[in-house]
Amino acid sequence: MDGMESFAALVARYRVIFFDAYGVLKNARGVMQGVPELLSWIIRQGKDVFVITNDASRSPTQMAAAYTHPEYGVLIPASRNISSGLLAKDFLRSKVRAGKVAYLGKPSSAFYIESAGLTPVHINNCSSTEDVAAIALLDDEGFDWFRDINLTLNLMRRVNAPVVVANPDLAYPVGDDEVGLAVGSLAGMLERIVGKSFIRFGKPDTMMFSHAFACAHDNLPELKKSDILMVGDTLETDILGANTFGLDTALVLSGNTRPEQARMMIQAKGITPTYLCESVFT
Amino acid sequence: MDGMESFAALVARYRVIFFDAYGVLKNARGVMQGVPELLSWIIRQGKDVFVITNDASRSPTQMAAAYTHPEYGVLIPASRNISSGLLAKDFLRSKVRAGKVAYLGKPSSAFYIESAGLTPVHINNCSSTEDVAAIALLDDEGFDWFRDINLTLNLMRRVNAPVVVANPDLAYPVGDDEVGLAVGSLAGMLERIVGKSFIRFGKPDTMMFSHAFACAHDNLPELKKSDILMVGDTLETDILGANTFGLDTALVLSGNTRPEQARMMIQAKGITPTYLCESVFT
Amino acid sequence: MDGMESFAALVARYRVIFFDAYGVLKNARGVMQGVPELLSWIIRQGKDVFVITNDASRSPTQMAAAYTHPEYGVLIPASRNISSGLLAKDFLRSKVRAGKVAYLGKPSSAFYIESAGLTPVHINNCSSTEDVAAIALLDDEGFDWFRDINLTLNLMRRVNAPVVVANPDLAYPVGDDEVGLAVGSLAGMLERIVGKSFIRFGKPDTMMFSHAFACAHDNLPELKKSDILMVGDTLETDILGANTFGLDTALVLSGNTRPEQARMMIQAKGITPTYLCESVFT
Amino acid sequence: MDGMESFAALVARYRVIFFDAYGVLKNARGVMQGVPELLSWIIRQGKDVFVITNDASRSPTQMAAAYTHPEYGVLIPASRNISSGLLAKDFLRSKVRAGKVAYLGKPSSAFYIESAGLTPVHINNCSSTEDVAAIALLDDEGFDWFRDINLTLNLMRRVNAPVVVANPDLAYPVGDDEVGLAVGSLAGMLERIVGKSFIRFGKPDTMMFSHAFACAHDNLPELKKSDILMVGDTLETDILGANTFGLDTALVLSGNTRPEQARMMIQAKGITPTYLCESVFT
Repeated sequence: MDGMESFAALVARYRVIFFDAYGVLKNARGVMQGVPELLSWIIRQGKDVFVITNDASRSPTQMAAAYTHPEYGVLIPASRNISSGLLAKDFLRSKVRAGKVAYLGKPSSAFYIESAGLTPVHINNCSSTEDVAAIALLDDEGFDWFRDINLTLNLMRRVNAPVVVANPDLAYPVGDDEVGLAVGSLAGMLERIVGKSFIRFGKPDTMMFSHAFACAHDNLPELKKSDILMVGDTLETDILGANTFGLDTALVLSGNTRPEQARMMIQAKGITPTYLCESVFT
Repeated sequence: MDGMESFAALVARYRVIFFDAYGVLKNARGVMQGVPELLSWIIRQGKDVFVITNDASRSPTQMAAAYTHPEYGVLIPASRNISSGLLAKDFLRSKVRAGKVAYLGKPSSAFYIESAGLTPVHINNCSSTEDVAAIALLDDEGFDWFRDINLTLNLMRRVNAPVVVANPDLAYPVGDDEVGLAVGSLAGMLERIVGKSFIRFGKPDTMMFSHAFACAHDNLPELKKSDILMVGDTLETDILGANTFGLDTALVLSGNTRPEQARMMIQAKGITPTYLCESVFT
Repeated sequence: MDGMESFAALVARYRVIFFDAYGVLKNARGVMQGVPELLSWIIRQGKDVFVITNDASRSPTQMAAAYTHPEYGVLIPASRNISSGLLAKDFLRSKVRAGKVAYLGKPSSAFYIESAGLTPVHINNCSSTEDVAAIALLDDEGFDWFRDINLTLNLMRRVNAPVVVANPDLAYPVGDDEVGLAVGSLAGMLERIVGKSFIRFGKPDTMMFSHAFACAHDNLPELKKSDILMVGDTLETDILGANTFGLDTALVLSGNTRPEQARMMIQAKGITPTYLCESVFT
Repeated sequence: MDGMESFAALVARYRVIFFDAYGVLKNARGVMQGVPELLSWIIRQGKDVFVITNDASRSPTQMAAAYTHPEYGVLIPASRNISSGLLAKDFLRSKVRAGKVAYLGKPSSAFYIESAGLTPVHINNCSSTEDVAAIALLDDEGFDWFRDINLTLNLMRRVNAPVVVANPDLAYPVGDDEVGLAVGSLAGMLERIVGKSFIRFGKPDTMMFSHAFACAHDNLPELKKSDILMVGDTLETDILGANTFGLDTALVLSGNTRPEQARMMIQAKGITPTYLCESVFT
């Protein structure tokens, strides 16, 4: 990591590109202008592309629908939108198996509970604690914070059920140098009060990288970790996680990490990307 | 600390009694039934009584008004209601001196900013960051959590001003085995995101005990720490703080610490009160 | 998880068994008496067996040598001893590539650095900071704590190199209700002082489970996660990690978790194993 | 806090000066050259001088002996060397009262246990847990780290006694841009493993400032907090603590805070001193 690199030049050196979504391909207004053209250009060069995102606010099909091109259609199919919601779903299916799951999040988050064969109940409709088999913290929107965070706290004190956090992020960019507080921050606050260990899914844990690597490997049996580039905007999740998993990494400065602070933060935190790029449009 | 003690019997052994408010003298519905009679009985025996409370939601005069007796009138005057809000006020007056203080809390919390000679501005009315001299987290009520916690987070990222937390509690009892999330939890969450050190006032820091001891000592020049009993319902604040300051302590089980868990929590946390009492009415 | 289960009865229900080493198969004096017989009995029933261990103090070959049977020879080959040291080695090979790695640990720990093609230098011989490409915290033995922990702290402040922690455990059982402080505790202490993010390998991160699952899957293409049982003695690593990865789990009470505390700790921490067994010999 | 100030010019504006010791008046080789002349110059102007130090490695008398002038003799008497050890002693005397105190530290640290009327036993001589009334972490020297930190950990798991930490510092300057790990770091590591709340004495808690203010006030009844300047080298202890107590503060760059990092750290941590000085010799 010396100077700024051109992202287009980097792409040429790798066989598979993993992208974080928010701050890289998307911002508060949706998919950034130029992203469909960029993705189709990468794909036409024969590269495989995945999205690796800490997000449980919508289904993989909804995620895939965001990346479409007028000519080429859906660019990243649902099966290549690997989300922390998906890992939470796998956990609920394999470890919880039956019953109601009380959740915090938008109605579209409930997809991950339903598709695990369980019954989602919004925390505000959770009148009885009797058959709550798990509690899921999915998204920071879709509920009244004062009422529902307090309801969640009291539910956690009363039922002995696993707590699943489907997005460990602390904050996310919402545009014009504003951030929004993510559900991972709410989870950390509640965990500290109740003193239990929640089960977190998402970067920097390496499980999404393993999952995406296995998918990519099925398609490309010769694939090695060194053939993959992870592109992200957040040091503590995208870069730390991909470093731990053994991938090369590019930090882009279009999201959580501001250009004037990037080098200072890299040094202060000791998390070093392989490359620095202003954005994916360079 | 062996068995349960009668609180009335304990009172006889001390010269000065320090009471926590919530969970000891008050609950979610206000001052507990019987408290005015109890306090007047203690005072008529010649004991000095203080309230030491992590609370910045109302002024000392409002606090004092809560403890009145039909016959004896105000039992604990404003000057003996020592609150974390008072320490925050002293800090603002001595260290901030001029300008606007953006705050989270009820309008009655703003008392502590005004009486420091500063201008309180509710976070939701804080349109410009220009002249914000400090940010004060005072209470968990009086604002829209989603909108105003996010506003506070972004304000903290933009202005370089001290952040004052006038109540470090994580949660407080709101009745019938329900708790409410206190502003100290919100402060911890924000502190972790922005990575700065907030300035906390309240137990377990010993500053309120020093303050109350100095007041009591002015009145009773022979007073020693061993003449004082601190009565509280929370191990991590009331008991840890008073232990550190060197006072004897009674843990009452009418608030944050539930009777069936008391001994397990004392052992698990390693915070040991001198005495255990069911409540102040024993 | 209701009553105590017989471990032998559990084995019958699974196709693959993952074992933690310390507190399950080993104690302070080495492999527990009866373990070679138990393992050979399990293997003769056609089960696949892996060891999943937070340990970077010796090579997989040395680990394998511990589990031998007079008649059947090596029971768990080196390739099925999946250790956090192995993950650290993979990281060093893929992300560091060249140079010296300053390490804390026994000389046998240096195996993981050498086999990554790098040059191990014991922290006490690290006279120059010039070409230190990484710092590796491998084991709690093999160095003078006062001298070498202070040397490590100062090296971390001076060089801008990744810090690898090859065992995140806080403590490990050393026999007769004594524990030893593990290198993960030293790492947490140093990380807090220098304020950087270290790169941790080992449970509860799911990477070792992914790795072992991929190995097992190569051999048994039909294998599902529900065919695997993870057996461990520590809630925060073995059970939390395997729960997160989606495996069934058995907590044994022969190591870090003491029988009289097991149920209280499960409830207090909110980490729930599928089964409870006194030991693997039941 | 704009530019660098001359310390001599600052002194003129205050009535009482509180000094931190390490990194301000002392370094690894003892009292810095020129300090006796500086202190006597300040005292001859009629200022009152106190040392406020997180240190329990020697007695107040030994501390006082360090600040002597060939002509004027002892400059800061024992009664004005306010140490965290002193607070620990007061706690032990008032709250522990009788029995053995197992300690980590140099023999000279044991002064604080003896002068509380208790029996100090070095952790390495603590053969029985029977009558251990408290455990005291006093200093980072005077013991074999590997053996005695492990002994302490196991003792803490076995006895239900308060743990006193008489120096909460993480590290301290030992000269030529080297630091030494302080006993506060060891305490934090042990606290995390055993899961209990230790009782910490020292800055940034305000108790030493209260103590010193009360001493100063006895001598100068008109003294206000705004008449006092606290001089320190560490943001998180000296400056945060004195800010919280309401004193003006000068950060000197001769110790823990390096000149090239001072402004960045002030901004990053949000702890702002009133003044910045290169050292006390400016």
